[in-house]
Amino acid sequence: MSRIGRQTIKIERPVYIRETAAIVGVKEGEGPLSEEFDEVLTDDTLGEKTWEKSESALQKKAAYKALDKAGMKQDEIDYALAGDLINQCIGAHYSMRDMDIPFLGLYGACSTMTESLSIGSMLIGGGFANNVMCLTSSHFCTAEKQFRNPLEYGGQRTPSAQWTVTGSGCAILSAEKGMARITAVTSGKVIDKGINDLSNMGAAMAPAAIDTLLAHFKATNTKPQDYDLILTGDLGHIGSDIIIDLMQKEGYDLRNIHNDCGKLIFDREKQDTHAGGSGCGCCASVLCGHIMKEINRGKLRRMLVMATGALMNPMIVQQGESIPCIAHAVEIEKEG
Amino acid sequence: MSRIGRQTIKIERPVYIRETAAIVGVKEGEGPLSEEFDEVLTDDTLGEKTWEKSESALQKKAAYKALDKAGMKQDEIDYALAGDLINQCIGAHYSMRDMDIPFLGLYGACSTMTESLSIGSMLIGGGFANNVMCLTSSHFCTAEKQFRNPLEYGGQRTPSAQWTVTGSGCAILSAEKGMARITAVTSGKVIDKGINDLSNMGAAMAPAAIDTLLAHFKATNTKPQDYDLILTGDLGHIGSDIIIDLMQKEGYDLRNIHNDCGKLIFDREKQDTHAGGSGCGCCASVLCGHIMKEINRGKLRRMLVMATGALMNPMIVQQGESIPCIAHAVEIEKEG
Repeated sequence: MSRIGRQTIKIERPVYIRETAAIVGVKEGEGPLSEEFDEVLTDDTLGEKTWEKSESALQKKAAYKALDKAGMKQDEIDYALAGDLINQCIGAHYSMRDMDIPFLGLYGACSTMTESLSIGSMLIGGGFANNVMCLTSSHFCTAEKQFRNPLEYGGQRTPSAQWTVTGSGCAILSAEKGMARITAVTSGKVIDKGINDLSNMGAAMAPAAIDTLLAHFKATNTKPQDYDLILTGDLGHIGSDIIIDLMQKEGYDLRNIHNDCGKLIFDREKQDTHAGGSGCGCCASVLCGHIMKEINRGKLRRMLVMATGALMNPMIVQQGESIPCIAHAVEIEKEG
Repeated sequence: MSRIGRQTIKIERPVYIRETAAIVGVKEGEGPLSEEFDEVLTDDTLGEKTWEKSESALQKKAAYKALDKAGMKQDEIDYALAGDLINQCIGAHYSMRDMDIPFLGLYGACSTMTESLSIGSMLIGGGFANNVMCLTSSHFCTAEKQFRNPLEYGGQRTPSAQWTVTGSGCAILSAEKGMARITAVTSGKVIDKGINDLSNMGAAMAPAAIDTLLAHFKATNTKPQDYDLILTGDLGHIGSDIIIDLMQKEGYDLRNIHNDCGKLIFDREKQDTHAGGSGCGCCASVLCGHIMKEINRGKLRRMLVMATGALMNPMIVQQGESIPCIAHAVEIEKEG
């Protein structure tokens, strides 16, 4: 039994991140991580007539890029694990329809990247697969339309609002040697602290991140300083401040160790994205682009990546409900 | 390595269905399986003010019932795997928020029950969990509102339309002894044969069921007559006729071996449900209710259950797309 805590497992059989690919939109390509992605779109429509089809095409493009970089064919992939934010996850389904890979659909909202890495690690670590594709995306225009206002409405954004990243990331996990190993996985519980402001997702998601982080530290008997980086998915500026503050009260100093994909992907001063980036594609593109490059450069040896998701839809919040959230953590180590 | 085919794995370490619970709505309780569920609701609202909250309450009720029947506490469950049809799977999320269980969210549309059994079997079979909760639901009123027309509209239904089951099923998988073993799992690919009629889901989903069934027979070197029952999720009357016809052309005779949860749950003559039942809760409640009872009665010794899902949303079909589908098969055997 590989369980080392209520929410945590050790991945004892080697599971590697064999290859990754990250593709982002125009605005994301104008940000500080511009050079860190495999491709920056010149047209966020990808030539499609609807934003939903654009996002699906983007996800497919990232999957093909990862396969191409790994020198692998689809029939070498035992499972694809994918999902996204669009109702009924059609971003994933209409991309997977063109692939010849057994598919298990996930919904973890913006936690999907680490949810897929978690399950993928267990499928390989359990001896059920040699190679697993983990894939997700988000698109500013599908998210605005579905969760907020029609783009044409041109509504003002509150300062606590985040900017959904147009981007997709694909990671191919493998039992064979790769860039880094996934060594432990802590799966989140659904946490709801009563936040019901759809324009302040960082505050809603921070308690879930804290819950998972405390569980991970306890189960693995580690502290922040044992990691080169503790990376959250899309808490953004507000959520990141909250997690640092509240973890301090729990006795953990995350300053200088913690960062957030939503903070990294946009320039806070120049890009007018308020509280930072968000969306499944935020953690996916930063992890599969920038972070894997940092690992390959030898800048990161042991890190924790923890994508966070807000598990509501707008209707249930209009019905008076608060926002339940989740965070899934994956520990990544570079060998040698 | 437990892989025995492109899409199929053997579950070598014993994984049991330890306990199940099934709760259905008023109309389902008037059907032929009335006595086979743990509970029939007397009020499909469950006292909630919105249908979405009703469905979430129903899912929670099924989960608690399964735990109660198994004599288990929440802290004995290592993972909950759940999802449903409501946008962003809020049925699952607002029920899981009240539970203290690590949660991995799935979206498989009406294939969710067997998707969760598939992943749950791998988590236990891989040594990562002792007990896993697999949970899903559907509700006629959330589904009509979201996928079709407002209930108040009172639109006529075409003869090929199916009736979304109000129901929830929960299965607790365990490494310890239980009612039956899960011995093999075949995961589907996303199959789209170009059907774009939202009122004929059976026809859309049948090709996915056939694809998975052929893969399962091939990998396990079995034929229909090796099973006491091959049970599909919600192909309904039309989809069931299609699968029997097309499998015949592939050289497999499913007559007398095949049945479908969507056919079983309603009385075709008396209940005016046209092409039969559908929804995540259809397979979930029939499997976790009637079928497990049949297994316990010794009527079924080896069976295949294969829930099917249509992975579209109404918007993408309005945008001119056809309906991609999937089917996940799980082989269940009673020991001794």
